[in-house]
Amino acid sequence: MKAIVLLSGGLDSATALYWTMRKGFRPLCLIFDYGQKHVKEIRCAESVAKKAGVPREIVGFRLPWGGSSLTDPGMKLPRDRSPERMAGGGIPSTYVPARNTIFLSFALSYADAAGARAVVIGANAVDYSGYPDCRPAYLRAVQKAASLGTRTGAEGGKIRILAPLVRMTKGDIVRLGTRLGAPYALTWSCYRGGAKPCRRCDSCLIREKGFREAGIPDPALAG
Amino acid sequence: MKAIVLLSGGLDSATALYWTMRKGFRPLCLIFDYGQKHVKEIRCAESVAKKAGVPREIVGFRLPWGGSSLTDPGMKLPRDRSPERMAGGGIPSTYVPARNTIFLSFALSYADAAGARAVVIGANAVDYSGYPDCRPAYLRAVQKAASLGTRTGAEGGKIRILAPLVRMTKGDIVRLGTRLGAPYALTWSCYRGGAKPCRRCDSCLIREKGFREAGIPDPALAG
Repeated sequence: MKAIVLLSGGLDSATALYWTMRKGFRPLCLIFDYGQKHVKEIRCAESVAKKAGVPREIVGFRLPWGGSSLTDPGMKLPRDRSPERMAGGGIPSTYVPARNTIFLSFALSYADAAGARAVVIGANAVDYSGYPDCRPAYLRAVQKAASLGTRTGAEGGKIRILAPLVRMTKGDIVRLGTRLGAPYALTWSCYRGGAKPCRRCDSCLIREKGFREAGIPDPALAG
Repeated sequence: MKAIVLLSGGLDSATALYWTMRKGFRPLCLIFDYGQKHVKEIRCAESVAKKAGVPREIVGFRLPWGGSSLTDPGMKLPRDRSPERMAGGGIPSTYVPARNTIFLSFALSYADAAGARAVVIGANAVDYSGYPDCRPAYLRAVQKAASLGTRTGAEGGKIRILAPLVRMTKGDIVRLGTRLGAPYALTWSCYRGGAKPCRRCDSCLIREKGFREAGIPDPALAG
């Protein structure tokens, strides 16, 4: 059975991809070029799909209305925030308006066209930056829209939205992915596109926390 | 209060735009270039927005997985189907997988970034081609996802999904738009991009039915 896997180039989606393969699905990866400040994560997503030996598609678009420090060169990325501060700080400037809704819509389109019966997203609602579109209740609402608004759903089938990591801690995710052989050395989490991860942005700090909790060294930092 | 209006260049969305203005919203139009077989409808959408004197944004993307006779040059458009045959014929080849879900996602993103509190879509579930993503239950599910997955929703606000035409007949829509002064002469419904509407595709035939029911001549066919 085919499954569309949203692949960002980061830790969570690589883990979600390997989870999908372990579950016996045939993954079709979907990668987005939406005007991120750097293309490093797109290249990493491609490398992860290649390493896994699974097909990938890239969809490109731009949001002319901006509104996020991830895509707007004029906005500063937050840094040096502790995970506690992230959790209590409301929605950060890195929030891209309705990004997961857009990603999931394209994934549903792909699933509807390719006859896939699942869409897999690495969303996480435990150790995360405070994005509203990572929460289980939100994902259930998208599931409902998927069932009603697709050919598959209208014809009696179902495209399931699967978020296997949504209730896991970052440490659990790292342990799971390591066990499944996810190629973390090829992943990129940093919001900046430097030669090395900055280790100060929210994404670097959450990643660091995960490897620390799992008691595993981050292979992307080796050497 | 700002409202994002999905504008396709056709009859329904032009009517929805003029309805939005009449309701006192400040419309921000959103137009898509998604690889339609012709760009005529995009130019028409721009003309309608211009005529109404309201701002517009264009978002472009491609669906590499195809799957629709509206975008795939290798697929034939259905023709000469009676409205009854359309209604009973299931989902036609012109269905673009999850198109309205993608359109609404971008509209939610725009609304979330611009502080708009409504998204207006000209979807219609009475005289339509059998698309699953035009039905009221589907739109309610998207409403739920909008409330949960946006910054606006998470911070206690609401972005309402408004589909003012969803339960109207095509005749009612034409009467409403004519009363509101919608510039139907500038709109384009035909799935083909010829010099004149083909009058044989589903979209032309539904449009014709609307003007016939309303007892009004179609200004786009004049001259």
